[in-house]
Amino acid sequence: MMQKDFLYEAIANKITKLIRDAVIKPGDKVPSVRRFSAQQRVSVSTVLQAYLLLEDRGILEARPQSGFYVRFRAAGLPPEPSGSFLRSTAATVDIDEQVARVFEATQQSNIVQLGVAIPHTDLLPNNRLKTVTNLILRESPALVNSYEHTVGNAELRRQIARRSLDMGCSFSSDEIIVTAGCSEALFLCLRAVARPGDIIAVETPTYYGVLRTIQSLDMKALEIPTHPRKGISLGHLRAELKKHAIKACVVMPNFHNPLGFSMPDRQKEELVALLNHHDIPLIEDDVYAELHFDAERPKPAKAFDKKDLVLLCSSFSKTISPGARVGWAVPGRYRKQVEKLKRMTNNSTATLPQIVISRYLQNGGYDHFLRKIRKAYALQMEQMLGAVTRYFPEGTRVTRPDGGCVLWVEMPRRVSGLELHRRALKNNIAVAPGMFFSAKRRYHNCIRINCANPWSEKIEQAVATLGRLARSEN
Amino acid sequence: MMQKDFLYEAIANKITKLIRDAVIKPGDKVPSVRRFSAQQRVSVSTVLQAYLLLEDRGILEARPQSGFYVRFRAAGLPPEPSGSFLRSTAATVDIDEQVARVFEATQQSNIVQLGVAIPHTDLLPNNRLKTVTNLILRESPALVNSYEHTVGNAELRRQIARRSLDMGCSFSSDEIIVTAGCSEALFLCLRAVARPGDIIAVETPTYYGVLRTIQSLDMKALEIPTHPRKGISLGHLRAELKKHAIKACVVMPNFHNPLGFSMPDRQKEELVALLNHHDIPLIEDDVYAELHFDAERPKPAKAFDKKDLVLLCSSFSKTISPGARVGWAVPGRYRKQVEKLKRMTNNSTATLPQIVISRYLQNGGYDHFLRKIRKAYALQMEQMLGAVTRYFPEGTRVTRPDGGCVLWVEMPRRVSGLELHRRALKNNIAVAPGMFFSAKRRYHNCIRINCANPWSEKIEQAVATLGRLARSEN
Repeated sequence: MMQKDFLYEAIANKITKLIRDAVIKPGDKVPSVRRFSAQQRVSVSTVLQAYLLLEDRGILEARPQSGFYVRFRAAGLPPEPSGSFLRSTAATVDIDEQVARVFEATQQSNIVQLGVAIPHTDLLPNNRLKTVTNLILRESPALVNSYEHTVGNAELRRQIARRSLDMGCSFSSDEIIVTAGCSEALFLCLRAVARPGDIIAVETPTYYGVLRTIQSLDMKALEIPTHPRKGISLGHLRAELKKHAIKACVVMPNFHNPLGFSMPDRQKEELVALLNHHDIPLIEDDVYAELHFDAERPKPAKAFDKKDLVLLCSSFSKTISPGARVGWAVPGRYRKQVEKLKRMTNNSTATLPQIVISRYLQNGGYDHFLRKIRKAYALQMEQMLGAVTRYFPEGTRVTRPDGGCVLWVEMPRRVSGLELHRRALKNNIAVAPGMFFSAKRRYHNCIRINCANPWSEKIEQAVATLGRLARSEN
Repeated sequence: MMQKDFLYEAIANKITKLIRDAVIKPGDKVPSVRRFSAQQRVSVSTVLQAYLLLEDRGILEARPQSGFYVRFRAAGLPPEPSGSFLRSTAATVDIDEQVARVFEATQQSNIVQLGVAIPHTDLLPNNRLKTVTNLILRESPALVNSYEHTVGNAELRRQIARRSLDMGCSFSSDEIIVTAGCSEALFLCLRAVARPGDIIAVETPTYYGVLRTIQSLDMKALEIPTHPRKGISLGHLRAELKKHAIKACVVMPNFHNPLGFSMPDRQKEELVALLNHHDIPLIEDDVYAELHFDAERPKPAKAFDKKDLVLLCSSFSKTISPGARVGWAVPGRYRKQVEKLKRMTNNSTATLPQIVISRYLQNGGYDHFLRKIRKAYALQMEQMLGAVTRYFPEGTRVTRPDGGCVLWVEMPRRVSGLELHRRALKNNIAVAPGMFFSAKRRYHNCIRINCANPWSEKIEQAVATLGRLARSEN
């Protein structure tokens, strides 16, 4: 009996090693029980016991009528980062422009792009968009050259409003203002609710674009500790509300950039209730929400807004076309201000991209396409998680994103993310150093990895190189 | 002899009346000398004398081998407005949002659009753009969905740089930043050179968009008296420079909106020298410059810049496609700041419209097209001048634009432009009230008329209605 136990455990461990070494990858089917027993020269029942043990351990899953598969969320990953429970301090943002420029210089074609969170072109509906564009040009070649309304194309706003039901909110098309991407939506909403010198509460870490926009508007970012699963710490936020005249709060509750979490609904509800209570506007960046790995699209915080104080911002840059620069805001009670600021920034968003996206949303291909790319993103994320597990040094922690396309990697304290970024760049690999995600340049031993590229040997090798460089840092 | 003098003068006056009454219109050929002598039962030599008298008076022009034509710039127009030599005062801009909204609500299809300065769709190269777009989509359906660089598409910037030689300056493509229209270029340049509370010198009257952008950025507009032919008063500007800490100056030297003048080169040179001397940046709006009625494109003030202190702003919205939202800035020594602000506003301009315009500029059709529309705009302007002359009350003054598409009409002081705007709107006619063009709500008895529509009976009737309404005001 001991002997037999030992045997099936040995086989289970052998399979685990094959998975760690990426010989068998997440989503792969493992050999059938019969075949594996023949290969390994052990009994069918021993192999079956080994597979069932691996199922118990969360490494394999049995699929009826099909066999055993390597689970996407395999066991044996490095631990998650701990909550960033630092003291929160208001600061004028001072992300070094020099460093930021190095980062942006990495958008070259010969670079393995693990830095910027941009969807790979294969994950966009290029041919469908081309067909739609041709159709529009044939129907109305002059219309596409006319100015669009400042608030945006009417049919596009109707399509966005129609989809709001699936989000768990329902807003009318009149509440929507089309913008040049989510970044412009955030920019306009910030300007609508706050003025130079005002304090803006943000998550830490948070998207560097938000920090730099706050900086460019001469506002101050107050970094609130943020848990890698539950999101912004309500306790800390509550305490800061007593100390500071916080003018607004910017958060990303769904598939946070860079932490990847989706805030539990109850947390979202509490957050909105807290800010509603203090009459403080909440600017919500919901740009990754459609890239959920689970069956359901998570609700935005906006769904819990009782006082029209949440300014919801999103775009089609992550799912349809980054280059179209079509985003939108539902600014609640700040609608008129956002419209006015939009007019004074650039009058209106480009016409043709709005009509193209509107027509694409209308013809019904979008939901089908989303189902396809969600699976691709989920797979890519697991592949990246696996690769980081295989190659990064002992003591590394990684997040467990439920959607989106970024992975946050906390390396041992001796490893500098900035140094790793610089050395990686010399090897034609781009990653985002952690300090970009804090106004106070925290997270020196962290990096953010973009997982928006279909997996390839080149990426596998790039992660191996990153791991090697991280190991060799002193 | 007396008798004969009287006769040919009588005939000349008869023709002048026919022109005033628009029976014969600017650009029309008048009947041949032989035919007219037969019709009027007078001698050929009498008619010839009458025509030569009208040529002396600047009403007709003789074209070799062709005959006599009604001159575009016909004599007998109302006088020009006098220079706006008011006392200049710095003011936070306070254009009533309510009024502005009324104005913007006039962008409806059933309205005769003499309000907003938007090119008529027939004056855009729609079919050519459609062909170019189809070609680009066939060649690279994925490329158009990728993010463009923050500074803009490289080939588009090359095309713009190439054209800078014809402007009398020469800048390289590296100096150019592509923006979402000229309005965004102005917005970014203003933010690059000044901060909230700063004083910005502007022409008066000036484009309301500039005033409102200054307002939205919490800056102060200092209105400098501006001559309807020579542009901003350098004497006044010089005096104000001594009194105020002027942070920047925004001007539109070519086909000014709303005054229509093109500043003489010597004035431009003096203006730039004055500001260069004080190290004050000049933001130049050059958006109408390609719509010149004379043979030569006027130089921008940028051509006289010795210290890289002129920030040149323009777009393709007036000549190729308003809806494409493709403009550009050459911000001189503020290039890096403008690039950074562009990134923090909306990352980059939409990709497809940039490639389409780049390809259109490249294939050589643009210059040919420009020659065509310049003639059309010149004709439309003369037709509008003629109609205002015919219908507006005694005591009206009008500008003499050398390009662009707007006419500034100064009515007798008893007539309110705002009231005329309101009453006209009830008749489905839009005009822009003069007070929109001043932070201090000056020019109450003025209106700006858009001349970007091909002439039609409907427009003729609209101007007749405007004249009737103006006459009936007390």
